Amino acid sequence: MIVVMGPGTTRAQREAVIRKIEAAGLQVHVSEGVERTVVGVVGDSHTKELLREGLEAMPGVETVVRILQPYKLVSREFHGGRDTTVWVGDVAIGGGRVVVIAGPCSVESRDQVMDTARAVKSAGAQLLRGGAFKPRTSPYSFQGLEEEALRILAEAREATGMPIVTEAMDNRQLEMVVKYADMVQIGARNMQNYTLLRDAGRAKHPVLLKRGPSATIEELLLAAEYVMAEGNPHVVLCERGIRTFESYTRFTLDLTVVPVLKRLTHLPVIVDPCHGTGKWELVTPMARAAVAAGADGLLVEVHPEPSRALSDGPQQLTPENFAVMMQELDAIALAVGRRV
Amino acid sequence: MIVVMGPGTTRAQREAVIRKIEAAGLQVHVSEGVERTVVGVVGDSHTKELLREGLEAMPGVETVVRILQPYKLVSREFHGGRDTTVWVGDVAIGGGRVVVIAGPCSVESRDQVMDTARAVKSAGAQLLRGGAFKPRTSPYSFQGLEEEALRILAEAREATGMPIVTEAMDNRQLEMVVKYADMVQIGARNMQNYTLLRDAGRAKHPVLLKRGPSATIEELLLAAEYVMAEGNPHVVLCERGIRTFESYTRFTLDLTVVPVLKRLTHLPVIVDPCHGTGKWELVTPMARAAVAAGADGLLVEVHPEPSRALSDGPQQLTPENFAVMMQELDAIALAVGRRV
Amino acid sequence: MIVVMGPGTTRAQREAVIRKIEAAGLQVHVSEGVERTVVGVVGDSHTKELLREGLEAMPGVETVVRILQPYKLVSREFHGGRDTTVWVGDVAIGGGRVVVIAGPCSVESRDQVMDTARAVKSAGAQLLRGGAFKPRTSPYSFQGLEEEALRILAEAREATGMPIVTEAMDNRQLEMVVKYADMVQIGARNMQNYTLLRDAGRAKHPVLLKRGPSATIEELLLAAEYVMAEGNPHVVLCERGIRTFESYTRFTLDLTVVPVLKRLTHLPVIVDPCHGTGKWELVTPMARAAVAAGADGLLVEVHPEPSRALSDGPQQLTPENFAVMMQELDAIALAVGRRV
Amino acid sequence: MIVVMGPGTTRAQREAVIRKIEAAGLQVHVSEGVERTVVGVVGDSHTKELLREGLEAMPGVETVVRILQPYKLVSREFHGGRDTTVWVGDVAIGGGRVVVIAGPCSVESRDQVMDTARAVKSAGAQLLRGGAFKPRTSPYSFQGLEEEALRILAEAREATGMPIVTEAMDNRQLEMVVKYADMVQIGARNMQNYTLLRDAGRAKHPVLLKRGPSATIEELLLAAEYVMAEGNPHVVLCERGIRTFESYTRFTLDLTVVPVLKRLTHLPVIVDPCHGTGKWELVTPMARAAVAAGADGLLVEVHPEPSRALSDGPQQLTPENFAVMMQELDAIALAVGRRV
Repeated sequence: MIVVMGPGTTRAQREAVIRKIEAAGLQVHVSEGVERTVVGVVGDSHTKELLREGLEAMPGVETVVRILQPYKLVSREFHGGRDTTVWVGDVAIGGGRVVVIAGPCSVESRDQVMDTARAVKSAGAQLLRGGAFKPRTSPYSFQGLEEEALRILAEAREATGMPIVTEAMDNRQLEMVVKYADMVQIGARNMQNYTLLRDAGRAKHPVLLKRGPSATIEELLLAAEYVMAEGNPHVVLCERGIRTFESYTRFTLDLTVVPVLKRLTHLPVIVDPCHGTGKWELVTPMARAAVAAGADGLLVEVHPEPSRALSDGPQQLTPENFAVMMQELDAIALAVGRRV
Repeated sequence: MIVVMGPGTTRAQREAVIRKIEAAGLQVHVSEGVERTVVGVVGDSHTKELLREGLEAMPGVETVVRILQPYKLVSREFHGGRDTTVWVGDVAIGGGRVVVIAGPCSVESRDQVMDTARAVKSAGAQLLRGGAFKPRTSPYSFQGLEEEALRILAEAREATGMPIVTEAMDNRQLEMVVKYADMVQIGARNMQNYTLLRDAGRAKHPVLLKRGPSATIEELLLAAEYVMAEGNPHVVLCERGIRTFESYTRFTLDLTVVPVLKRLTHLPVIVDPCHGTGKWELVTPMARAAVAAGADGLLVEVHPEPSRALSDGPQQLTPENFAVMMQELDAIALAVGRRV
Repeated sequence: MIVVMGPGTTRAQREAVIRKIEAAGLQVHVSEGVERTVVGVVGDSHTKELLREGLEAMPGVETVVRILQPYKLVSREFHGGRDTTVWVGDVAIGGGRVVVIAGPCSVESRDQVMDTARAVKSAGAQLLRGGAFKPRTSPYSFQGLEEEALRILAEAREATGMPIVTEAMDNRQLEMVVKYADMVQIGARNMQNYTLLRDAGRAKHPVLLKRGPSATIEELLLAAEYVMAEGNPHVVLCERGIRTFESYTRFTLDLTVVPVLKRLTHLPVIVDPCHGTGKWELVTPMARAAVAAGADGLLVEVHPEPSRALSDGPQQLTPENFAVMMQELDAIALAVGRRV
Repeated sequence: MIVVMGPGTTRAQREAVIRKIEAAGLQVHVSEGVERTVVGVVGDSHTKELLREGLEAMPGVETVVRILQPYKLVSREFHGGRDTTVWVGDVAIGGGRVVVIAGPCSVESRDQVMDTARAVKSAGAQLLRGGAFKPRTSPYSFQGLEEEALRILAEAREATGMPIVTEAMDNRQLEMVVKYADMVQIGARNMQNYTLLRDAGRAKHPVLLKRGPSATIEELLLAAEYVMAEGNPHVVLCERGIRTFESYTRFTLDLTVVPVLKRLTHLPVIVDPCHGTGKWELVTPMARAAVAAGADGLLVEVHPEPSRALSDGPQQLTPENFAVMMQELDAIALAVGRRV
């Protein structure tokens, strides 16, 4: 950590800064430049982080520059540079295969889920998704079938053998989801819901953590750190579009985070091209691009009849379009040395 | 609502759209333009909203344009054009006075809170704030004193007479907060935590709802609609900065929402210049600007010794700086026909 | 075009709006909804566009909704749905092949350009790039070798047979660039430099138009419309990253625009993964992703020794890394039915 | 400047970095932390800046942190901490008074300009604005009356005594503008048009430099540095809204830059609340807020009949509304110790 002191700093201000650092048991290296004084801080990174904001608030301090990342358990460096594989039932995310998680946005009926589950399985999907508790922008929109939906999903798992993934938005839902599902999704709007992250960490269940629409890469990694800090290493990260000025698409899919995250963390990284674009016609090209960029998997919404969907109709694929997408992905996966 | 059908649309596609609209009990007005067909949809706005995404997913449909806002209870129009006043204890937010809510970011000790409470009260603050449960980006940062903090706040209310405001992040914390505090804050990161919004609606306690860092104005109003739809009309909105490309400040304080919200909703609107800027030197000018723009109040962090604060030190005012700010606000408030 | 009139509108306000529309020779369809009056405007799209802002400024008007796009020559619809191929020398952009434009960020010396040109050619690049006039954020950075650079580029074309692409920032530079180069680049910071766009239109030379860092898709298409409206149809669009809150990368590469633009316009679309990411390690995965998303080509910076580059060192590939990238692209191109 | 070297760095990589720094005549301070090596670079700031990107491109280098700002002439520090006053004719911008620049978006006719000029002058405006060359998103929109407009503006100056401000978009327009106008505006879309900035610097005429819609504060200051580096110190900065995800307003007016810029630079800072909001009803509250935040002036569009304006009708005030605004500003200005 480096403390930069401004040009008009007094000796007393400088000494106060140094005293504060040394009182915390850290070492100080002062380097006087032509126009600024730079105070290097050496020692335990946790102690430095706790001191940081306090130093920034001291008179004479222009800025405090962090040298180390504030996360630890999620970092590739800490994990010896190796990739992590997260097992969901008998499916491995983060290994050689590109894992496709597919299913309807919302669970609407038993038939809808069973039909979709069979269709996506036969096209090559490995995990089944479907929303039981739906975060909706308007209180007047369909909010999900709740426990009934979880029962339907469990039945679809029985029928198809596919492990299931579904979202929980608070501790009460989490308790239920953990009973029925193989992996719990923490949605984009809850990425910084820290009590939920801790609860999910304690539940020790595999977690699919979606990036918040205005979350930086560092914030996403710190959210995963919350889960891991509770002793749950089974975390998969998911890019699903960030909020920018461009309004033609629902969000802006930030595919560059795929190679970035692969460098910074050992956790698997998947991509959701449906929320990222908001338009089904854009899903297949962006799914191809995600795999080409190195994603470990995809999260894709499929509905037997999107125009009758109770949520997110415009961005869901039909089973036919999904099958076409899977074939195209296969070719791309081979080109990057993987399989779907 | 208006459905725009693209240039290559077939007659069958157009008829399918019309059938879907009429089947929902709505009326259709077709207008054929030179290059597009425009289908106007007339009838109950709730039914239209439920149909919207389904129509967008139909073949031939280029776009669906909403004419009415998707919120209702929060809209100024629905409320007969009048302002709402929200009472917190004996303090009215949204009346003639500019209400200042002040106090430390986090409750750290009894002395810290009591000293700050007395100082901000004597400078003119009307409500006391202080965090008991802290949402922190890193799991390794100070997370709050929890119930102990609530007890300290309640004691400060006894001593000073100021009603207290504090944040809850989930249903368990909400239950506790409602017992001790006069107003519950729903923080920016939880603005779209819909189960929490519903719980806060059912609690019927006054709610301070902060805008999420990437929430549009419409999303903020729909979040307030969630609370009101549960029968709780005591909602105050708070702008606290949005996330943009500019990184010099912590967030970008979007003061234009103040006059915008005053036109769209009857709910009171306050501004948090501390989170919006992240730097204490910028707090006072932006507090002045907020009042000049028409804000009904301010949320300001004050700490007896910011460099020792356990959270957000760089953006907290000292009691002395707070007193100066209050004097400056007084002059601005008078210039816009109000009082602090 | 649709004019929405608010709930408190008077009859006189409505009539004034209708009179204004009819006076312009357009037809009016009035539809009274439960809460709003919607005035449909039918007729010549150009006339409607000219009227739009004036209507928006009239009392009682809540909003004016555009049904048609404001651009014409660049739209796929106007071009009969067919793709355009832009020829630069004997290289076709927008046909079956993925065209790679490569070369140094800045022209720094004869040797640097000749070495790079030979290397990228042998790895499969078809066009040579290199900056003669450099737009630099700071006035103290290297600003380019100007005409001397153009001569060096022309010499490299002689030696390798590769057509050359270089940027012009104003009319004076444009005159020179047109003499030496086969294609003129209009950089991201000049995307809305309308006098330059017109000048480039009149020059009738092939134009590589880069998207501005905060330009919407519609603004990019309107910028191309400026060039085409002067009678120059030889325009290639280039995505190079937009400005968002994420600061880990230099910009956020918005690859979704590739399939979006392919739907909206007949012009070829290429991608610059160097500026989009700002880090050479991210260039290859994002180049793969761009081709997988359907890009017609790539713009890639290559420097014999990036750490000695006078501009943008961190985002330039070495010739060795470029050759590896080209091999990887080949596999992706085949997977989407193209060749590099 | 500080070079951070990653955990796996070899000794050879470290030595290469040190050699490169020392070869440039700079000094090196190496500090070995627990996990990273930090190389401090001391010496001439210009040399450091030129070396920066090259260092970043070297193997083993994780990041390069700049300690000093890259601008110099515009910095408050360099100017001894004093404010600069820019004189435009006999009007001082940056002194005790809040200067209001008012007039139509576009010059449309002699009568329109003369009427507006008289109206805004009698309401208290000090400078007259009006567009002769208009940057328009669409090539089919009204592009300005060009030299005819400049003549009309000059006539209005004769009649009212108000100095005039108008925009130039390239060197040819600049030559003309300098002949007629007292201050040349460089518009938001040209903020990084470096050849124009240099030309405006050489012209030595007062410059009104508007912030680009995606320009950071640092980029705005570097654009001003381009003008000053050519020997022209007469620069006024103008905030006019940045591009964010919020689409209710045309742009997001970033008023926090006012106190930020006042700390970083000695140049005067004004605000344009018309472009910043895009809606005339929001102009007055945001004008009040700008003055309360400490702005040295305002740029406001006024049109005798906004619904007939050939550009930007929805954001222009009528002369009556302008007069009301001026009265409200007066009260705010007094509250911050200034006068309008």
